[in-house]
Amino acid sequence: MNNFNFCSPTYFAFGRGAEARVGELCVKYGAHRVLVVYGGGSVVRSGLLARVLADMEAKGLAHVELAGIRPNPTDDRVYEGIDICRSQGVDFILAVGGGSVIDTAKGIAAGAVYDGDFWDFYSGKAVPAAALPVGVVLTIPASGSEGSGNTVITKRDGLHKISIRTEEVLRPRFSIMNPELTFTLPPFQTACGIADMMAHIMERYFSNTEGVEVTDRLCEATLQTIIHQAGVVMTSPTDYDARANIMWCGMIAHNGTCGVGREEDWASHAIEHEVSAVYDVTHGAGLAVIFPAWLTWMSSHNPHKVVQFAERVFGVSPMETPEATALAGVARLKAFLKSIGLPVTFGELGVDDPDIDLLVSKLVENKGESLGNYVRLTPQDCREIYELCRG
Amino acid sequence: MNNFNFCSPTYFAFGRGAEARVGELCVKYGAHRVLVVYGGGSVVRSGLLARVLADMEAKGLAHVELAGIRPNPTDDRVYEGIDICRSQGVDFILAVGGGSVIDTAKGIAAGAVYDGDFWDFYSGKAVPAAALPVGVVLTIPASGSEGSGNTVITKRDGLHKISIRTEEVLRPRFSIMNPELTFTLPPFQTACGIADMMAHIMERYFSNTEGVEVTDRLCEATLQTIIHQAGVVMTSPTDYDARANIMWCGMIAHNGTCGVGREEDWASHAIEHEVSAVYDVTHGAGLAVIFPAWLTWMSSHNPHKVVQFAERVFGVSPMETPEATALAGVARLKAFLKSIGLPVTFGELGVDDPDIDLLVSKLVENKGESLGNYVRLTPQDCREIYELCRG
Repeated sequence: MNNFNFCSPTYFAFGRGAEARVGELCVKYGAHRVLVVYGGGSVVRSGLLARVLADMEAKGLAHVELAGIRPNPTDDRVYEGIDICRSQGVDFILAVGGGSVIDTAKGIAAGAVYDGDFWDFYSGKAVPAAALPVGVVLTIPASGSEGSGNTVITKRDGLHKISIRTEEVLRPRFSIMNPELTFTLPPFQTACGIADMMAHIMERYFSNTEGVEVTDRLCEATLQTIIHQAGVVMTSPTDYDARANIMWCGMIAHNGTCGVGREEDWASHAIEHEVSAVYDVTHGAGLAVIFPAWLTWMSSHNPHKVVQFAERVFGVSPMETPEATALAGVARLKAFLKSIGLPVTFGELGVDDPDIDLLVSKLVENKGESLGNYVRLTPQDCREIYELCRG
Repeated sequence: MNNFNFCSPTYFAFGRGAEARVGELCVKYGAHRVLVVYGGGSVVRSGLLARVLADMEAKGLAHVELAGIRPNPTDDRVYEGIDICRSQGVDFILAVGGGSVIDTAKGIAAGAVYDGDFWDFYSGKAVPAAALPVGVVLTIPASGSEGSGNTVITKRDGLHKISIRTEEVLRPRFSIMNPELTFTLPPFQTACGIADMMAHIMERYFSNTEGVEVTDRLCEATLQTIIHQAGVVMTSPTDYDARANIMWCGMIAHNGTCGVGREEDWASHAIEHEVSAVYDVTHGAGLAVIFPAWLTWMSSHNPHKVVQFAERVFGVSPMETPEATALAGVARLKAFLKSIGLPVTFGELGVDDPDIDLLVSKLVENKGESLGNYVRLTPQDCREIYELCRG
């Protein structure tokens, strides 16, 4: 087991009606003038936004709004939010939505108190030392951003999609998680969220670090729960307990619980980020295509942890070779992803003629010549993984 | 799944040499004048205390000391610590040791900023609204107090051993966890710690709340890890990875991760607390006797979760009746506890002639006529469980 630091200080208010506490929690964590960031559509139509704003007003909080955040959120909206914070004296940012909204809020939070260009944090020129406090009302379980110190933003000029991770400074102060708010999520979006949270666990699980049984088993426990409850959610979208299990798993998957004490991988995320940046596909759907391809490649190059995954998560019996056992696990994973309506090939993703040269060159441009840790991937290896996505 | 709040804000610095950060972390969390609380013996002999004090001095921190905290810590030492804090202007409390030391530190932390008698918090007359900040250098993985908001203190006058739980106010600001510091723990103390952390999980696991698969599986994952790594630690006490897994499991077992979303039980802890208060036995050894007896009783009164425990944690195959499956699991648990050198009967605990009338009457005095949730226990039920401890 490697040395590690772990700090997940977010206050989680979880359950039916939890959003009624939004004003109280904003006040508790020091808010006076709040920037409310949201996407639009369902948050407005469902009346959630109106209830949130009414409760904040009842608690004496002033607010300004930044609306219309879209999936794969872009730098322009972050700049816009920073300008609002500075000109309006905002001291707290409330994200009402899913990962794109929360990640935008975090970018704004870091940028608003920084003298330079906020993109410095994403380009690696600077590390956020401070940020405005962020609160969350979560409506889409997927990104885990409600419990993580991470944020992903795409720079429109050049399609650079970059994620950063902070130990503490960008963790939300509070996250309100009411599973009922996810009852109306469309099936495809629900499934994409499930793929996303599974990927967050697998990026941490596939590691060569020895002696981390506790972390391995916590990963397997969370994956098994997601796989089981996903089946319930897809057939019974208003099953409260199933939605609740999925929602909490999405947080556990990404707040660090599943990663402590070992080297993580994250190659699949980087490989996928180029796909969603170039083709604007949903991140979770892209992961459903990339991860099985990455695992297929690993089954012949470094199968040992894929074998453990196959046996413990999917109950695969040992076969004649480790590679065969590993590939049986990958087949089970693909079957599961397809069963919840996800694509597992470029074609099923709607990318009939992928420009693999462009994807590899963007990858090299953003991440350099070497990627991941479970096996250090060369650009040629990444090309092979993209090719495996053709199905 | 029930509504819940979860907040575990402690900063964990985990790994080899982590105690070198003690001064830095005290400063980060606002310390100027520190009360260092410890037991004595090994912390002094090993040189750990001297290293901690030297590092604090190097960071410009003043300190005073409260030494000689004993197992099953008592109220008199808490009063003493409160007096020191007030007379010496202490603004931070550092616990160097295990659960007894940390729990004493928490009692002092709450009492030092409270106008009344600190025992009000334990007797239920008041709830701690504030406390001095507490830091931890952990030397015994067992109590989970390094990550919990809980503390247990025994009032010498009347042998009342009472635990309280706070959501946030008594959680340590930081906990330093170096598994190497546990290499020299004697086998019996190591085993008692293992029983204690297993009990913390089982108190949460045995619940009638439906729809909590994620929490169930996280419990099972942690229990399986403990059971597996316990075997390694008992034969190879300086195996770093095994000690590290056990140490982190002890934290996970009690910071709330294993309890969210459901009713918990805690009858076994209450039943045991009377044993350790009256006979001054080690808490973990007492639990090794009480928990199997409680499970045996539950196997005939409410077996369903004991069956799941038997099947998933110990791999028991389903037998002719749920009770039989459950009892097979209890037998496996007892065999495990004995294999690491723990008692599973009053006689093996060194209590040859237990005064069960006294134990039941103290239990009623401290906890009332009804105990636990998995089955609400009457005093007669508790008497039957004590009788089962005769073996």
